[in-house]
Amino acid sequence: MAASRKRNVNPDLAKERSKATFDVEELTYALYLGKEMTERKRYLEDLAINDPFIKGCKPWAFCSREEQYEMALKKHIYIAKRIKELGLTTDWDQFFYTEAMACHENSPIGLHSSMFLPTLRKQGSEEQKKKFLPLAENMTIIGTYAQTELGHGTFIRGLETTATYDPKSQEFILHSPTLTSMKYWPGNLGKTVNFCIIMAQLYTKGQCHGIHTFLLPLRDLETHKSLPGVELGDIGPKFGYGTNDNGYLRLSNVRIPLDHMLMRYSKVLKDGTYVKPPNTRLSYGSMTLIRAIIVGDSSRGLSQACTIALRYSAVRRQTEISPGGPEAQIIDYQTQQHKLFPLLATAYALHFTGQNVYMIYMQVTSQIEEGNLDQIGELHALSAGLKAFSTWECTKGIEVCRMACGGHGYSHASGLPKIYVDLTPGCTYEGENTVMMLQTARYLMKCYAKVESGEKLPGFVSYLNTDLSAKSCLTADVTLDCLLQAYEHRATRMVHVAAKNMNRRVMVEGQSQQQAWNNTSQQLVWASRAHCHTYVVRTFVDMVTSGVYDNQVQEVLTSLCKLYAVHGIVEYLGEFIQDGYFSTKQVDIVTDKLWSLMQEIRPNAVALVDAFDYPDAVLDSCLGRYDGNVYQALYEYAKSSPLNQKDVLDTYEKYVKPMRGDNFSSAELLKISKL
Amino acid sequence: MAASRKRNVNPDLAKERSKATFDVEELTYALYLGKEMTERKRYLEDLAINDPFIKGCKPWAFCSREEQYEMALKKHIYIAKRIKELGLTTDWDQFFYTEAMACHENSPIGLHSSMFLPTLRKQGSEEQKKKFLPLAENMTIIGTYAQTELGHGTFIRGLETTATYDPKSQEFILHSPTLTSMKYWPGNLGKTVNFCIIMAQLYTKGQCHGIHTFLLPLRDLETHKSLPGVELGDIGPKFGYGTNDNGYLRLSNVRIPLDHMLMRYSKVLKDGTYVKPPNTRLSYGSMTLIRAIIVGDSSRGLSQACTIALRYSAVRRQTEISPGGPEAQIIDYQTQQHKLFPLLATAYALHFTGQNVYMIYMQVTSQIEEGNLDQIGELHALSAGLKAFSTWECTKGIEVCRMACGGHGYSHASGLPKIYVDLTPGCTYEGENTVMMLQTARYLMKCYAKVESGEKLPGFVSYLNTDLSAKSCLTADVTLDCLLQAYEHRATRMVHVAAKNMNRRVMVEGQSQQQAWNNTSQQLVWASRAHCHTYVVRTFVDMVTSGVYDNQVQEVLTSLCKLYAVHGIVEYLGEFIQDGYFSTKQVDIVTDKLWSLMQEIRPNAVALVDAFDYPDAVLDSCLGRYDGNVYQALYEYAKSSPLNQKDVLDTYEKYVKPMRGDNFSSAELLKISKL
Repeated sequence: MAASRKRNVNPDLAKERSKATFDVEELTYALYLGKEMTERKRYLEDLAINDPFIKGCKPWAFCSREEQYEMALKKHIYIAKRIKELGLTTDWDQFFYTEAMACHENSPIGLHSSMFLPTLRKQGSEEQKKKFLPLAENMTIIGTYAQTELGHGTFIRGLETTATYDPKSQEFILHSPTLTSMKYWPGNLGKTVNFCIIMAQLYTKGQCHGIHTFLLPLRDLETHKSLPGVELGDIGPKFGYGTNDNGYLRLSNVRIPLDHMLMRYSKVLKDGTYVKPPNTRLSYGSMTLIRAIIVGDSSRGLSQACTIALRYSAVRRQTEISPGGPEAQIIDYQTQQHKLFPLLATAYALHFTGQNVYMIYMQVTSQIEEGNLDQIGELHALSAGLKAFSTWECTKGIEVCRMACGGHGYSHASGLPKIYVDLTPGCTYEGENTVMMLQTARYLMKCYAKVESGEKLPGFVSYLNTDLSAKSCLTADVTLDCLLQAYEHRATRMVHVAAKNMNRRVMVEGQSQQQAWNNTSQQLVWASRAHCHTYVVRTFVDMVTSGVYDNQVQEVLTSLCKLYAVHGIVEYLGEFIQDGYFSTKQVDIVTDKLWSLMQEIRPNAVALVDAFDYPDAVLDSCLGRYDGNVYQALYEYAKSSPLNQKDVLDTYEKYVKPMRGDNFSSAELLKISKL
Repeated sequence: MAASRKRNVNPDLAKERSKATFDVEELTYALYLGKEMTERKRYLEDLAINDPFIKGCKPWAFCSREEQYEMALKKHIYIAKRIKELGLTTDWDQFFYTEAMACHENSPIGLHSSMFLPTLRKQGSEEQKKKFLPLAENMTIIGTYAQTELGHGTFIRGLETTATYDPKSQEFILHSPTLTSMKYWPGNLGKTVNFCIIMAQLYTKGQCHGIHTFLLPLRDLETHKSLPGVELGDIGPKFGYGTNDNGYLRLSNVRIPLDHMLMRYSKVLKDGTYVKPPNTRLSYGSMTLIRAIIVGDSSRGLSQACTIALRYSAVRRQTEISPGGPEAQIIDYQTQQHKLFPLLATAYALHFTGQNVYMIYMQVTSQIEEGNLDQIGELHALSAGLKAFSTWECTKGIEVCRMACGGHGYSHASGLPKIYVDLTPGCTYEGENTVMMLQTARYLMKCYAKVESGEKLPGFVSYLNTDLSAKSCLTADVTLDCLLQAYEHRATRMVHVAAKNMNRRVMVEGQSQQQAWNNTSQQLVWASRAHCHTYVVRTFVDMVTSGVYDNQVQEVLTSLCKLYAVHGIVEYLGEFIQDGYFSTKQVDIVTDKLWSLMQEIRPNAVALVDAFDYPDAVLDSCLGRYDGNVYQALYEYAKSSPLNQKDVLDTYEKYVKPMRGDNFSSAELLKISKL
């Protein structure tokens, strides 16, 4: 345990920890890929937490938006410098170091390393890389990735910015032809970067060749002034992301040289001849990776919220359960357990799913390098759907955690609003969730067609061959196997129903394919959700039955996995039972199992969040502290509020006093107030 | 129409309006209690919107927390002054005037008139009112209501602040005996008020007599300095409510005279003798009223969010439905309709329910004045449950609206985050929602016991006598009557199931009543939710079948009411079908009806939000503007961001420049950037 975790602990929390039936350390190792990696993580976290630079920073919640930007800029520049000095080269090292330094304080220079540099490396020609990479790597050039426009988000083909080649001068003319074509939302664009990679419709010889990427200078590298023809700025305050200068950009016929189009795949020759890329599917890669990573991010956000809410629920006492008895820990109320324990199970489920999808991404990528593109479609469908599924679950879950903390959850002192506003954009960015679910549905419809034609599907989707006339095998012992089968049955049924409805609309009602698709789309979304849900349950079941854990850890994870599955059935009961798959008795068994599983989890609830091993600095929460001294922390938080710098604010003399009745003399006033 | 609503309208929106099948004006009158009241509302809104004072205020989203407080203080003092000058005495007038002036900008002096004055009037003795009311009415005394403590919220009996009577000096000693006993959260407490009404445990002659209310001076009436023994301040930044100085207050043996206990009901005599109040149930009143009002507030928040999301959905175009076709209005996507139309129906349902509960409150109150207390219990149960039901629906719904606006919904330009953070505390304040649902459940369990003993229940709960063996009468025409019966069946079944489970735990498993209650509490919450849901459906059905609307209005409201009921069945399908109440075929009928109702609503969607008649100033949203010119508005919003006051921020020279590589001469840098 890191030193920062050892302190005088609230006795209620200490007691919770002593009741755990498993070794928390073992589970932490299981979550963070072993002892060595866990210790590395803690070493990096301690380095960050004890850095005097960070200790001197004004707390995020006390900053104005302008200060939030400045603080984050300062912090992230410092982090970048330290990462270099410390020689932190792996994703693992950089992630945990940065998280502990600036958790949920989005970087104003982050797009440079996460999008600008990788795109330059992947899509730049050898000459371009030689010319621009050194400048970008030492941050002479600081860049971002400008895709989204005022009028277009997820639908990339609809982007309106134009890049028109002028063979006379051998330049591209970058232009925003309409109001809606201005770039809007790219991170770091408003004030920080001096370059961007911009997506624009390529026109040459009078023909449009679709979206291509260009290197575009935005600001003078010396003075940082915006260049002629470049109108740009910050897009203003948002729900969160105050630290980030998401920007707008309007271009008036800005000329860039021929070699500023990224030309590894597509090319434009000097005379304006367009040369197609060899394979368009290769660009799937980075999008898929980001979506896979978002699954893990969602788990992380949700497990942080669970850590805060569950520790607080163990410390908070409210109302006696029996009259005259002591006030109960709120974690002992069934309704509180029902709010939080399924979310805890979800956080674990998504953690394992995130690791699983990342691993599959790596496998498929190495297959691609060997020229095997077979699995690209499946991976794409999987990552799209799981991105949507996990961000929705996470977003919903964080708010449940917040409200489960009562009024205090609403204060920034809880840390929960900050987690929420940082995570909820995941439902929208990198592909709007509903659109993502429909992409997965498109893949499922293809699978269904194969099933209908008698084909046996390979891999995970093979469950779609399930015989729908079978009934549930579930009995009082509620096995993982019967639970998983229920999920497979439900998803198969929903895929079939959606497909049949769509076919009916085309064949019987005479609708076009597109109309039928749209008129079935909500059922398609539901089918995708059921499919993703099944994948998550399957992954969780696979993990707990893998035999890699010690007995105690396996036992508690099995309870958690069952809780995840059982709760999902109760939550979406209609989808499971409308064809009579479960008998009424089986429904009762599942519902009763929900209550008994919650009791099973109860003694381990705090230990299960402890296992995520978040340092207090990451949670940044008065309620989620490891030591459970929440009330003292809330009091300190309140006292430090910037509004309290003076007992009497200037606003008193300016506004309050003049409005008050003056029917009384000062002497009389004095008498009343001094009572 | 107000002048501010007539402008060049986006052609997509103009077309939507021309397609409406009903007269929007008629529906507006129906929502706002007739033509005269509607016109009054508009007159007040226009007065507010055109006031030069408001036009000069810095926008809320651009203010720091400290500025938000100051702006709101200034604004609300001005509003109070204008309300006096304009002679606005009715709740109606004050509400609409204030809403248009400072929508969702919570007042730093609001608790004075909403809680301090009414409590003084209701609970003060005649002498106390004579002494303190004039001072409070002319705002020499500005007060708040200090109930919630750091350690106790909804559980009022658990409050720890003490008021100990000292007969020698004839004073009460107000004290915070523990850390957790400090007041925490009361609005306006931190910096603005100089008095409060404080809830404390009364001790006299060595005995505790429970919670009583006291008048407590906090600050010097002249200098506004906090008084000796009074430690207080702002509790710091929160998710929202930045304009409000929710405060903390820690008391060290502060003495107040005997006449500072509010003595209309309970009394303490000079010698310390305690005199009980005649009837404890009388204090239910104001809590019940506030909860009834919250139902209406929830409807208002949700209908604002729907107005923004639906107008934007009519203007936003994204992706073609058929390849090569024009990009579709996103309101034409079934998935978008499925997100928003049921919420629109919910906003209407809650609007009517809010009016209904308020009316019942008024009836019951006048019965109470006549000494008839029969309906207090039912009203209390109803208002508690509906408060929870409506705030949960509203909170969930606003976020769905926000995310249905894609990325732009996340910007404060959309107005949606502001509505959300202002409304979501409603789930917690004035009684935490889960606790509220359980209070309703307690009433339902009493009703169930009566049903079991063969009693016929009167009034709304009479449906609990429903014969559970009956099956649904639903056929292809999906009548309101069959829908309502389905809700009654489901709620009755769930009340029965919860009661039976609880009895089983006591009788068979030998649990105490309290244990059994706790172990059944989640099912009790579900039963209460089903009960409240039924009440809302019933109210909506009663309204649309009341015969007070013209044919076209009645037709569209009937579609909306059916959509509300049908969507609820699909959403909670498991609860409706687990006992076989619906056949598989009926489930298909209901599901298909959902899609056809959405198509029925489609042409009227924009007109239905127009009918809520929100001026743009109330929505404060680039996306929800009446004229639909959203992109120009977003661009203006971005340009006005405080970060854009300078092209090059000082942070460039301070942080960005020093970190950049210096391998290049200025001349070389210049060359690159000027490309």
